[in-house]
Amino acid sequence: MRMVDMIAKKRDGGELTTEEIQFLVTGYTDGSIPDYQMSALAMAVFFRGMTARETGDLTLAMAGSGEQLDLSSLQGIKVDKHSTGGVGDKTTLVVAPLVAAAGIPVAKMSGRGLGYSGGTIDKLESFAGFEVERTREQFLQQVRDIGVSVIGQSGNLTPADKKLYALRDVTATVEAVPLIASSIMSKKIAAGADAILLDVKVGKGAFMKSIEEAETLANAMVAIGSQVGRKTVAVISDMNQPLGFAVGNALEVKEAVETLAGKGPRDLTELVLAIGSRMLVMGGLVTNVEEGRKKLEDLMASGKAVDKLAEMVEAQGGNKQDVYDLSRLPQAKLIHTVTAEQDGYISEIDAEAIGHASVVLGAGRLTKEMPIDLAVGLVLHKKRGDQVKAGEVLVTIHANEDRLLQSALKEMEGAFQISTAIDGDQPLIYKIIEA
Amino acid sequence: MRMVDMIAKKRDGGELTTEEIQFLVTGYTDGSIPDYQMSALAMAVFFRGMTARETGDLTLAMAGSGEQLDLSSLQGIKVDKHSTGGVGDKTTLVVAPLVAAAGIPVAKMSGRGLGYSGGTIDKLESFAGFEVERTREQFLQQVRDIGVSVIGQSGNLTPADKKLYALRDVTATVEAVPLIASSIMSKKIAAGADAILLDVKVGKGAFMKSIEEAETLANAMVAIGSQVGRKTVAVISDMNQPLGFAVGNALEVKEAVETLAGKGPRDLTELVLAIGSRMLVMGGLVTNVEEGRKKLEDLMASGKAVDKLAEMVEAQGGNKQDVYDLSRLPQAKLIHTVTAEQDGYISEIDAEAIGHASVVLGAGRLTKEMPIDLAVGLVLHKKRGDQVKAGEVLVTIHANEDRLLQSALKEMEGAFQISTAIDGDQPLIYKIIEA
Repeated sequence: MRMVDMIAKKRDGGELTTEEIQFLVTGYTDGSIPDYQMSALAMAVFFRGMTARETGDLTLAMAGSGEQLDLSSLQGIKVDKHSTGGVGDKTTLVVAPLVAAAGIPVAKMSGRGLGYSGGTIDKLESFAGFEVERTREQFLQQVRDIGVSVIGQSGNLTPADKKLYALRDVTATVEAVPLIASSIMSKKIAAGADAILLDVKVGKGAFMKSIEEAETLANAMVAIGSQVGRKTVAVISDMNQPLGFAVGNALEVKEAVETLAGKGPRDLTELVLAIGSRMLVMGGLVTNVEEGRKKLEDLMASGKAVDKLAEMVEAQGGNKQDVYDLSRLPQAKLIHTVTAEQDGYISEIDAEAIGHASVVLGAGRLTKEMPIDLAVGLVLHKKRGDQVKAGEVLVTIHANEDRLLQSALKEMEGAFQISTAIDGDQPLIYKIIEA
Repeated sequence: MRMVDMIAKKRDGGELTTEEIQFLVTGYTDGSIPDYQMSALAMAVFFRGMTARETGDLTLAMAGSGEQLDLSSLQGIKVDKHSTGGVGDKTTLVVAPLVAAAGIPVAKMSGRGLGYSGGTIDKLESFAGFEVERTREQFLQQVRDIGVSVIGQSGNLTPADKKLYALRDVTATVEAVPLIASSIMSKKIAAGADAILLDVKVGKGAFMKSIEEAETLANAMVAIGSQVGRKTVAVISDMNQPLGFAVGNALEVKEAVETLAGKGPRDLTELVLAIGSRMLVMGGLVTNVEEGRKKLEDLMASGKAVDKLAEMVEAQGGNKQDVYDLSRLPQAKLIHTVTAEQDGYISEIDAEAIGHASVVLGAGRLTKEMPIDLAVGLVLHKKRGDQVKAGEVLVTIHANEDRLLQSALKEMEGAFQISTAIDGDQPLIYKIIEA
């Protein structure tokens, strides 16, 4: 088997065999296949695509390229959840304790975020003392004890994917759909998922800018799921405006707790119920989405969902009181409000501009090494479609330095569009794709 | 300027600027642009192509990436000739002294061959003592003295092309037409050509298998010529059967001398006259092809063409007697004939099979390090379309080892096809392309 022949085959529209893909991934991981051959293949894949069979094989080969998490000691169907990322996306913070409270075992590894705001584990560190580094045994034991643990990624999971992703980043091959899809799916499979719920974000604040692109990616991932025997459902959801009101780490935690208590923003609550109810179906706890939804709403109303988060915070070294008294979370020094200059209806809230502003404030990081400020961020007071009067507050900015506050204000210029007439409603969830 | 942005631009069908292409070639030559980015770009070029302007810029940038030969001290228009290579292609051996005899200055650097038989300078070494390594001054002085010198490639010409070619070879990007075209043209320009005559071979024994492919490449090279101000003419000629009768180094030299004397095979003579006459027009020595043809035929008939080769052999350390007494050239020990098994007409002589047989005998090399045997090879007795009777000789094999002779016979099985009816004639020259 020669790599150059495999590149030529893909270049000419051929289909790589299972053996060839295994050879490729093994060789690339151990260094016997050089970067310059892999990048040429990645570009050929950009133009020629891959069949569902090829993409499935690539996913499994990458999942198997390093350590794989064994969750077989946990009872039940392990349903993992993944978001392609967006501004104000605190869905996991809500969904993880919520479905755990319903009985789905949640043993979740989560990344630190690059871009807009921190990742789930950055946000969780808003709880003083919260530990995201745990041994495998501590991690699994906690899930056996209380049904949920969310920790940082550790161990040598999917080294082939890590290496390939870094290469794609500098060779303009990030955009190849089969490679995006297999990258995401391989990480979920290596992390032990039996079933996978994907939240594919689309719009100004997301990687996928058009519904067509998002749908193509969602279809590719659902097809991989079928191919490799992991039930996969993809929700395509809106990321033109931020999700919920809060953007920033502690601010999002606060909103997540409120949502767990059934008092969250309408869009976030709706998305959490849509995702969570489907995870309950996939986990075999309920037979249909409506039943799942009802169950989750009950857990919110009864306080059990908030209690589950409090249990997790305590189990991982934090103080459960922080969950019940949100004033104990990190607070920024400077609070600044931006008001509307005219009457009308909010026709657009540019998620990308809000995201940039949050990074400028210090809520997100652009490189792995950048520290983040857990207290800072923005809280919207209005969402798209809302009526507004001149002088009403549009957004509150939480900052720790005046210099950064001023930069953030500059980033946000034009982020809110106000029109005289109400626009047609844009849906929160565009489509749900399942095999 | 960032290479990753240039790759993305080309991937999406954009046109690279002159500055971007210069940045690319300079960076790749000095190592600041890594192989893995260059191979991704090469694959994007395979799919997206390049405009004439881009290809012209790439050609000039590669020509300027190292040493460039300065032929300005030589009087007249320097017309270089290049063949894309084929089986039995000894055209340069004939054309160089022939057009020099007519008054075109020929200061030619030529490669050692890879594949079927040796390159022009391997073949010239069939003359005992012939020196192919000369200083720049010796080389130019000889052209000033006798009008012609053919030497091996030396110096650091087109390092960017050398590096890129090696990379393309292992990344399945050899086939990208703009890259093939600019590779060839950059070498000719760095070697000092004012005008370029290209012999693009097409058929079983050539790199280009179809007329369409050959025409695409020829058009690309002629367009580069226009772009960079070097008059360029491309002749697309047949390589389904070997050119002439002889395949092998000394055997081809013998046939070249016979052709210079006007007694060569019909096809080789025709190709030499077609190419040489156009070189005379390009060099401004005659006003049209017919006039050029007449002049070259006269030089053949008068013996002046053979004399010019003899002068060159002597000037480069050989014995001019070898040109007049061809029995002095290397001779193989074993002579074996293959005869026809049936009556009929030769419908096909598989150039690729004959080429492989010559390599097996030792006439060609597969790696740069392989030694070659100047004496061995094959001499056809029949060409496509000829009538043959059972028992008549089809080909004589010249070998130095019985073991190799047997392997060559195996390679040649089925190379000659005999049919009962005569096929339509296949032309020698398919097309002539000029700007």
